[in-house]
Amino acid sequence: MNIKDEVTQIAQKAKEAFYKLQNVPKNIKTESLLKIAEQLESHANWIIKENKKDLKNAEEMGQTKAFLDRLELTPKRIQSMAESVRVVASLPDPVGNIESQYIHPNGLKIAKIRQPIGVVGIIYESRPNVTIDAASLCLKSANTCILRGGSEAIHSNLALAKIFNDTATQCGIPENAVQMISTTDRSAVGELLKLDQYIDVIIPRGGKSLIARIYDESRIPVIAHLDGVCHTYLHADADLDMSLKIVMNAKLQRPGVCNAMETLLVHEGCAPILLPPIAKELIQGGCELRGCPRTQMIIECKPATEEDWYTEYLDKILSIKIVSSIEEAIYHINHYGSHHSDAIITNDYLMSEKFLEEVDSATVYVNASTRFTDGFEFGMGAEIGISTNKLHWRGPMALEGLTTFKFVIRGNGQIRG
Amino acid sequence: MNIKDEVTQIAQKAKEAFYKLQNVPKNIKTESLLKIAEQLESHANWIIKENKKDLKNAEEMGQTKAFLDRLELTPKRIQSMAESVRVVASLPDPVGNIESQYIHPNGLKIAKIRQPIGVVGIIYESRPNVTIDAASLCLKSANTCILRGGSEAIHSNLALAKIFNDTATQCGIPENAVQMISTTDRSAVGELLKLDQYIDVIIPRGGKSLIARIYDESRIPVIAHLDGVCHTYLHADADLDMSLKIVMNAKLQRPGVCNAMETLLVHEGCAPILLPPIAKELIQGGCELRGCPRTQMIIECKPATEEDWYTEYLDKILSIKIVSSIEEAIYHINHYGSHHSDAIITNDYLMSEKFLEEVDSATVYVNASTRFTDGFEFGMGAEIGISTNKLHWRGPMALEGLTTFKFVIRGNGQIRG
Repeated sequence: MNIKDEVTQIAQKAKEAFYKLQNVPKNIKTESLLKIAEQLESHANWIIKENKKDLKNAEEMGQTKAFLDRLELTPKRIQSMAESVRVVASLPDPVGNIESQYIHPNGLKIAKIRQPIGVVGIIYESRPNVTIDAASLCLKSANTCILRGGSEAIHSNLALAKIFNDTATQCGIPENAVQMISTTDRSAVGELLKLDQYIDVIIPRGGKSLIARIYDESRIPVIAHLDGVCHTYLHADADLDMSLKIVMNAKLQRPGVCNAMETLLVHEGCAPILLPPIAKELIQGGCELRGCPRTQMIIECKPATEEDWYTEYLDKILSIKIVSSIEEAIYHINHYGSHHSDAIITNDYLMSEKFLEEVDSATVYVNASTRFTDGFEFGMGAEIGISTNKLHWRGPMALEGLTTFKFVIRGNGQIRG
Repeated sequence: MNIKDEVTQIAQKAKEAFYKLQNVPKNIKTESLLKIAEQLESHANWIIKENKKDLKNAEEMGQTKAFLDRLELTPKRIQSMAESVRVVASLPDPVGNIESQYIHPNGLKIAKIRQPIGVVGIIYESRPNVTIDAASLCLKSANTCILRGGSEAIHSNLALAKIFNDTATQCGIPENAVQMISTTDRSAVGELLKLDQYIDVIIPRGGKSLIARIYDESRIPVIAHLDGVCHTYLHADADLDMSLKIVMNAKLQRPGVCNAMETLLVHEGCAPILLPPIAKELIQGGCELRGCPRTQMIIECKPATEEDWYTEYLDKILSIKIVSSIEEAIYHINHYGSHHSDAIITNDYLMSEKFLEEVDSATVYVNASTRFTDGFEFGMGAEIGISTNKLHWRGPMALEGLTTFKFVIRGNGQIRG
């Protein structure tokens, strides 16, 4: 069978399984998730054996230490994977919730009710834990899914998917509720992205080039974020201690993630006082600073180019700009940013409200680190990704974001006049 | 200026106007809508004069009577346009509503708040009232919009947009909140669909070929329905009187619209009794019937082909199929339908619940005509379209569907551990 037929068949089976899954009671889904967590733990040795094959291949291909670290599965990591399945099992499932009901003057009861979306395609890179996280969230929310992991993790992913599926079907989940694409042929992704007849949404997780390619090629709606160019803006009245603490956390606690700060905006009124001590601590933390001309007059740093304002470094690098007003800061964020996560530090009530209202981002903060943009931190228990799309879902996304709704109308013979 | 630059400039201005519009208080938007309604009425003569130019061109091009009827603006139609602007003005505006708030253990207040989407592109065909409906709904929900009407209505549309804009800016709405593309060059649509940098969503309204082209070409998310292949299923216990009344209404009250029934499914248990009287009334109403082989054994009708089950006739034609079970009916609807509006007629509680749960459509009915799928009937006051997409919005869509949300987080110095 060629790749196109193979992928099409998988998608067709996923759609069929979706309709079957709607007949499975909620408690069966929860029980199978708990059983899956158990089976992951009891098969840890086999998973690690399969994972070693991937690690060996990756080493032979000369992958970096960071890459090997992301790929590696240890007993502790398998334990924490199982734990996250248990968390998903315990979350409230939004499917079937009535969002609102309107009674038509003629007596029709028109209710808006949460429903699963359908078939979810998940395309991701090296971390094998995405296999289990995504499959659990989809199963809990009664969606079926097609998983396409990176070829470098194929043995690990196939082992995890096999445990997930064997256990799920034993517990009464229909076959093909979770399918892993087993070919590592690169054209499989291209074929998948054409199947809008069967697949309802694509959620990609990985580097910018992967996401950009998927946005570009897909005929299926894509939910993702391309960039995380996040800002922290120190307003004129910003407190030094709070600014220092939040800037250090937003930039350096974990610089390689999408909700880390990339650009610091500072009001001209406080820049001479705040910038020197903040710059000092950042430099001590190993951070490279790139500043606008006014910044360079206050602290020692490299010049920032126009390009810098658009850049997600994902590294210990920070661009700094001094602005003359909150309006300039908001304009900068809306113009150069990626509409992901942006914060203001201020004790001025009017300014905080203005910032929250006018910054057009998925998550906007007052007096907190942008590092909180995360499904778990937002009380969702887990996340399947973070969206900077405007439609359907913005920000960290989990079970509720994996649902749509339908209008359910109950009548007793009404016709339209 | 070439078309590409012209359209790009319009889109850039729409994005700028969007940010300005966020600073306009709600009462200014409501007041300008009321003023616009007034001005439409007082300029009725001029609008009719401009509309006559379009009518003359359309007549010279040999357009049908139905086409000319859709295009024509009469004093009464202008009156009803103004009335619908007043209704939109009076609707509750969802922007700023808090959907939910979660308090993090560390004290962060994480709220999900309704926001306008941004720039809405609306592409539509002959009816000039869409100009005013769409502009009003977008203004009320603080979105800016780019309108692209059919070339056959260009004089009418430009006149309506001029009155809308002149009045709005006098009332304090920023310029370019509503822009009409004035060129009738067909390439303008193609250029518009590329501008995902500025335009957040495309809502097309018109025939299937227009919608299909837009889904195909657009780099911007599209909200629409391609087809309305709606079903009514008469379960074994269906009451004759209710079935007759609902079938006649769903098929013949207005056959040319998307929520009219195209296929009747009948359980084999009631077909011999229900089909003859229903067929008789349908035929008396001028309806052509096309049946499956089992239907043809009970009533006189043409044979239905496989093609018929997929077809939206938008005309006085009905396909009829006898099914052996509710499962077969549900399978037929999910497989051949367009996931728009589908109904069951039954007094069996379990069967009604099964149908509502398993039919995967935007709107599902028990004991009512599918003709109710409409924003006004659903208590939304108006509609900007009907969506059969799975993501963002399903079914009739108005102000709430024109919003997204953002997460607003208020802290007092929280950093991530």
